[in-house]
Amino acid sequence: MARIVQKYGGTSVGDVDRIKRVAARIKETYDDGNEVIVVVSARSGVTNELIARAKAIHSIPDEREMDMLLSVGEQETIALMAMALHALGVPAVSKTGAQAGIITDPAHTRARIMSFEGDRIETHLKRGEVVIVAGFQGIAENGQITTFGRGASDLTAVAVANAVKADVCQIFTDVDGVYTCDPRIVSDASKIDEISYEEMLEFASLGSKVLQARSVEFAKKYGVTVEVRSSFNNKSGTIVKEEVESMEDVVVRGVAVDKDQAKVTVSNIIDKPGSAAKVFQTLSDAGIIVDMIVQNVGRNGVANLTFTVTRSDSARAEKTVATLLDELGGGEVEVFESIAKISVVGVGMRTHSGVAAKLFSTLAETAVNIQLISTSEIKISVVIDLEQADTAARAIHSAFQLGTK
Amino acid sequence: MARIVQKYGGTSVGDVDRIKRVAARIKETYDDGNEVIVVVSARSGVTNELIARAKAIHSIPDEREMDMLLSVGEQETIALMAMALHALGVPAVSKTGAQAGIITDPAHTRARIMSFEGDRIETHLKRGEVVIVAGFQGIAENGQITTFGRGASDLTAVAVANAVKADVCQIFTDVDGVYTCDPRIVSDASKIDEISYEEMLEFASLGSKVLQARSVEFAKKYGVTVEVRSSFNNKSGTIVKEEVESMEDVVVRGVAVDKDQAKVTVSNIIDKPGSAAKVFQTLSDAGIIVDMIVQNVGRNGVANLTFTVTRSDSARAEKTVATLLDELGGGEVEVFESIAKISVVGVGMRTHSGVAAKLFSTLAETAVNIQLISTSEIKISVVIDLEQADTAARAIHSAFQLGTK
Repeated sequence: MARIVQKYGGTSVGDVDRIKRVAARIKETYDDGNEVIVVVSARSGVTNELIARAKAIHSIPDEREMDMLLSVGEQETIALMAMALHALGVPAVSKTGAQAGIITDPAHTRARIMSFEGDRIETHLKRGEVVIVAGFQGIAENGQITTFGRGASDLTAVAVANAVKADVCQIFTDVDGVYTCDPRIVSDASKIDEISYEEMLEFASLGSKVLQARSVEFAKKYGVTVEVRSSFNNKSGTIVKEEVESMEDVVVRGVAVDKDQAKVTVSNIIDKPGSAAKVFQTLSDAGIIVDMIVQNVGRNGVANLTFTVTRSDSARAEKTVATLLDELGGGEVEVFESIAKISVVGVGMRTHSGVAAKLFSTLAETAVNIQLISTSEIKISVVIDLEQADTAARAIHSAFQLGTK
Repeated sequence: MARIVQKYGGTSVGDVDRIKRVAARIKETYDDGNEVIVVVSARSGVTNELIARAKAIHSIPDEREMDMLLSVGEQETIALMAMALHALGVPAVSKTGAQAGIITDPAHTRARIMSFEGDRIETHLKRGEVVIVAGFQGIAENGQITTFGRGASDLTAVAVANAVKADVCQIFTDVDGVYTCDPRIVSDASKIDEISYEEMLEFASLGSKVLQARSVEFAKKYGVTVEVRSSFNNKSGTIVKEEVESMEDVVVRGVAVDKDQAKVTVSNIIDKPGSAAKVFQTLSDAGIIVDMIVQNVGRNGVANLTFTVTRSDSARAEKTVATLLDELGGGEVEVFESIAKISVVGVGMRTHSGVAAKLFSTLAETAVNIQLISTSEIKISVVIDLEQADTAARAIHSAFQLGTK
């Protein structure tokens, strides 16, 4: 017998039939003698519909009211899921975030969990009930409903798992787990059985959509074991957990491909202290998140500054920087949208040398030009031409022998 | 300056455009210097959609989960309404039933209000904010979300008006007020300016849909002045309030026509004590609500028992009574669906005689046969043939000089 948290996303609970199918799956786990706590998202599309209505009424809706509005999506699903379990003879009870005891700070639409005691859930588990908790939401100490931001039902699941000291937090998704590379790009990509929090964080922040970065951080902080697995089959998925020594045997865990970036180059600005600070403070004030940053200074005292942003932010980033050019002492801004970022990730890099050399030589052999390079302790990222992204990913994947074949 | 509660039903807030229109109307009242509290229902159709999903999952959904499910409808509307007011520059804040402080008993799907202090709403009124309260819902002392039953947003409005000692509780609807008769039947039906709680209760229970009976009872108990008015124009509506002496000057306030009834006759049963009790207890156990009851005993010791029920309940009522026939000592059950109930209502009947005589003679002159008669202190109801209902209503309306012409 184990204590298991299962999280099902919006697609898995998208309509009545899917809710019934998920309920049948929960029943299997329950019938095996496990204690089960379920976290669900809003039915797919519901949150977007609610946002569309809000935007049709107010261009910048009040954040408190947005939380009041959006929290209804999950509340609908928990009630329907409880009914679906009842229909299968499984005792079950639904809980809003507030009822489950998830206390947050009062920062509407981006609240952080302040405290979460598992006793309210525990009471129901003791009665043999499955507890269904609404994802994505909590309650502030002032009694206001709060939400955690899009995709944060994963965070609720991990927080629930921590609060009730669950053995595992299973995140159900439409893939079998975390892969060594996107299988749509690399046909022999293989499922990773175990991955460390650090590696998973790199994958999450690199645009792999299987697990939200915030929930991985939370899991890491509290040591919650997470399993990413498919809602379509019963195969075991990928376990995300504390790094163990044997993990370092694998030098490169996987290859991440991010095709959703754009590169902004500010060239020929005068190299003086504070220029970069000025640029990135202004971008930050405009709410633009910058990923990679590279600066070179030439011999003639002029600097070139290059950074990457999400492609949808590139036009805004260009405009924002353009307003600063006079202050920076001239220069030009250029945007390159046709780029991709490819990263190799692995905790083994800490103890193994030669990863960078192998990566660069592989790209050279494949005639791929490297535009930017950025490294961390367990990751090397390069920016290359978008058109060469798939070819490059396949070559790297093969060079590091990550495939199943 | 006055303190005004305004209640808008599901049709009035059915979509984004209608919500904006209602917001503009609230703004007018607010800009006139009034304190405004708004109660809204779920957007029209939403509650039915939610029920349909629940029924597709479970034939008899758990009542706690139904409340969890259905309460989201109103929660969506309050958030959108607050945003719509913000868009017009009106400070506004939304409150779920729980947040507003509406404490109920724990009877899910049919909860009753136990206590409701207005201080939480008061705080916001003092800040100059419009407060938007979700209709139809509250919270039990055990923290569970409860609902009051269909159409009970009126009840919330009246309860809010009482809690904050509002000057008036305006119920916005698709008609200009309460009429002396259904204008679709009687073309010269006139709007009633003032009506007593007792009269309104009779109209409400007689199938006039403008105001829910429970909310009238609540208003009567606490002396809340209610105004029924149109959401499509600015005409003053019908004031429902404590009876004043001058109200008795009008003998008949109006004529109500109920075409949704069926008559069940149990004939030739042995006249012995307990027969009627047996019949109506069994019907009550089956959840069938009986309206009029008439019993005649013939000379030969056999009795005829006739009662009316909602037409949709007639087949079930017939079956239920049929199972009792042996016990009742034989007899037959017959159902007549082609009937209508016509009632004249007025507190003036207490002090004026001759209403019944005038009613019966008017029907006789119109060649309408009376099948059943039932009276109360301020009401006389007759059951007649359905096909003659409109003709009879027009004749009665005219005989009591209720028309505008």
